[in-house]
Amino acid sequence: MPSNHKLAADLLAKAKKLNQEDPLASFKSEFLLPQNVIYVDGNSLGPLSKAAKNRAVEVVEQQWGNSLISSWNVHDWINLPTTVGNKIAKLIGAAPNTVICCDSISVNLFKLLSAALLLSAKQAADDKTDARTLILSQKDNFPTDLYMVQGLGQLLNSGTQTKLELMSVDSKDITRSIEEHGHRIAVLMLTHVNFRNGDIHDLQALTELAHAKGILVLWDLAHSAGVLPLALEECEVDFAVGCTYKYLNGGPGAPGFAYVAERLLPDLQQPLSGWLGHKKPFDFEHDYEKAAGIEQLLCGTPSIISMSVLDAALDMFETISVSDLRAKSIALNDFFQSCVEQINASYSPSDSPLVLACNEQAQMRGSQISYKHPHAYAICQALISEGVISDFRSPDILRIGFSPLFLHFTDMLNAALILTSIVRTKRYTQPQFLIKNKVT
Amino acid sequence: MPSNHKLAADLLAKAKKLNQEDPLASFKSEFLLPQNVIYVDGNSLGPLSKAAKNRAVEVVEQQWGNSLISSWNVHDWINLPTTVGNKIAKLIGAAPNTVICCDSISVNLFKLLSAALLLSAKQAADDKTDARTLILSQKDNFPTDLYMVQGLGQLLNSGTQTKLELMSVDSKDITRSIEEHGHRIAVLMLTHVNFRNGDIHDLQALTELAHAKGILVLWDLAHSAGVLPLALEECEVDFAVGCTYKYLNGGPGAPGFAYVAERLLPDLQQPLSGWLGHKKPFDFEHDYEKAAGIEQLLCGTPSIISMSVLDAALDMFETISVSDLRAKSIALNDFFQSCVEQINASYSPSDSPLVLACNEQAQMRGSQISYKHPHAYAICQALISEGVISDFRSPDILRIGFSPLFLHFTDMLNAALILTSIVRTKRYTQPQFLIKNKVT
Repeated sequence: MPSNHKLAADLLAKAKKLNQEDPLASFKSEFLLPQNVIYVDGNSLGPLSKAAKNRAVEVVEQQWGNSLISSWNVHDWINLPTTVGNKIAKLIGAAPNTVICCDSISVNLFKLLSAALLLSAKQAADDKTDARTLILSQKDNFPTDLYMVQGLGQLLNSGTQTKLELMSVDSKDITRSIEEHGHRIAVLMLTHVNFRNGDIHDLQALTELAHAKGILVLWDLAHSAGVLPLALEECEVDFAVGCTYKYLNGGPGAPGFAYVAERLLPDLQQPLSGWLGHKKPFDFEHDYEKAAGIEQLLCGTPSIISMSVLDAALDMFETISVSDLRAKSIALNDFFQSCVEQINASYSPSDSPLVLACNEQAQMRGSQISYKHPHAYAICQALISEGVISDFRSPDILRIGFSPLFLHFTDMLNAALILTSIVRTKRYTQPQFLIKNKVT
Repeated sequence: MPSNHKLAADLLAKAKKLNQEDPLASFKSEFLLPQNVIYVDGNSLGPLSKAAKNRAVEVVEQQWGNSLISSWNVHDWINLPTTVGNKIAKLIGAAPNTVICCDSISVNLFKLLSAALLLSAKQAADDKTDARTLILSQKDNFPTDLYMVQGLGQLLNSGTQTKLELMSVDSKDITRSIEEHGHRIAVLMLTHVNFRNGDIHDLQALTELAHAKGILVLWDLAHSAGVLPLALEECEVDFAVGCTYKYLNGGPGAPGFAYVAERLLPDLQQPLSGWLGHKKPFDFEHDYEKAAGIEQLLCGTPSIISMSVLDAALDMFETISVSDLRAKSIALNDFFQSCVEQINASYSPSDSPLVLACNEQAQMRGSQISYKHPHAYAICQALISEGVISDFRSPDILRIGFSPLFLHFTDMLNAALILTSIVRTKRYTQPQFLIKNKVT
């Protein structure tokens, strides 16, 4: 159709212009992306960078292979959790030495939830008030966050009078729940950017509201770190956790991070008190005495190979401001949405039954767009087969992620053309796309 | 001195003969050890193998780099924890699907300690008896094990009537403590091979004794896995944890493993209930429902790069029996000790103030020998400077580890010659060896 050719040509011209104006465009060449792939799943697993690849070889062959055990000193493995933590701190507006890299995001969540509960119990005892027994969260939080509260509750509730309870409410009811039940809530635990629809919580306002009710806050930054500007210190956030294999491109299952406000470190007690969190780990003392600083969150020996690769991946962020990343992320997000809408508008409406499952404004959502479709799974598989790697989130969400470091605006146009064409032609109905045998 | 030359020649002939008779001698060539190094610290960090090096390149460049997110399916990352767990199961006498690889040994210890306590509490409730509140361990257990009990205790004891207590006793008093306090002990938690002196507990006898008193047992196999024959299933061990960066050569900070007896899996509850331990992780349900099998011990996303490297390192064990490893380990241990003793005997006694800090019989200790010396730290540094990489354990222990896969008997002789010479000539008194500025 001529009108469609004209539209495609116009959009291509626009995409090229946006590429030219993009100050981050050249970073794509720092990544080792496969040929003929548009990778819009960096929000699930960030891709390999040249720096990460080189470091993998170095840490395995040079450090482990040649320097062996002495690498703990000569290659400073022992300080890697704080070295990496400090690189992340800069990206989330945290003070130096308040972020540490270790374990997984789930394990770190357990440490900080427990620590928050202990602090809250101490405060209640000091104030001679009843212990607070609720953890307030959101029904559609990422499940692991809810599961960790449930697991901690089962442990704590065995044989004790005080029952720890998860209170999970709809997003719209969070403020009201704080207002109504504030005196019973120990911790407000939320994910800053929702994994399904990309909704962004007002971190500052909710933190302030919670604090006014004596509630500690714990933010999950899995979908924020490295792509949304954050000011943890300025907002007086108490605790945060995050993961490093999404926008930080740290590699599959790269270790998580944990943040604790400096003012809370002296009185903090976390139950996963392994030897590396000890004040003097190599004195091998009988009794645990926690390290004074953020190192108190360390537990066992960290996965050095994975953490080294992450360390190298983070170096790319040294010269980039998170505001620039956010600006480009919004622009990519907006341009993709606009391409999809314009292409669909040039066909009959019945050909494009993709329903937006997120806020309509790119600047109001995280670095992703979500569509609802009864065949979202099959559409996602069809997209992958045509080189557009996106992901599916049960039950019916197609999620497209916008990593500003390696995506160009022309990638957005091409992804939009392929997506709309797959939906329009129903190519996703081919049998190989319909069988749901994949795990992610 | 002629007598010393004669002795050295005799010992060399003996070492060469032992090398020739060694069925495992050829495995040394599977490792990428640096030139001119005798590595007797494989019990702290096993060295790099060719297989591990190749896999590191493959997992980073091919799997992550090229297959990106789809590697969870196409390279079966999702099943890596059970794949690796099953390889370890064979080495520790565990049934298939009772071992999983994940997190660190310390984190796994916390999961299993908590799970054991919950089981014990349930049993007490069923029996209408008092809950058992003691964890029995050993004073000189590896500190992290004791610290984890202390951390769990702090968490559980906040606001509850039942106080969890660590009871740590001398090794010689373990049996008596079980006899005397058995009805109050929930869990017996011991490390099979002591990290300082290599003492080996009678795993079977202690497990039986504990069970007779209704006590659950949790064994730490950090210094046993891959070098001492174990029969967890046959001995009806309840729980075990272990690490993979020592004799299993999995790489620095490679993930730990956890074992649970099959009979305990149905009723087990562990508090670190992250999404990957869920029955259907990718259904993203609101409530945690644990997986039926050993996967219930999974928590967050595993460090795939580190775990893949470990997976490759384990393949070397496919064709080797642990009995053969143990036989060679004893032979190396014995030959090293005998070389040191014979060399020292050829000099005046005052020249060799190294005191054996372990059982005198190689077959009665783990795959290591320990010496006590007021300058153990400086001796260790001097050894390293002369190419013999051993380690120091505070306050005064020099530890030499015997990894049967890559050490030859000639290495043992050379290490013994260098060690005795350093002590005899007091070369360790050079200033650079005396300053204690190293962390490991």
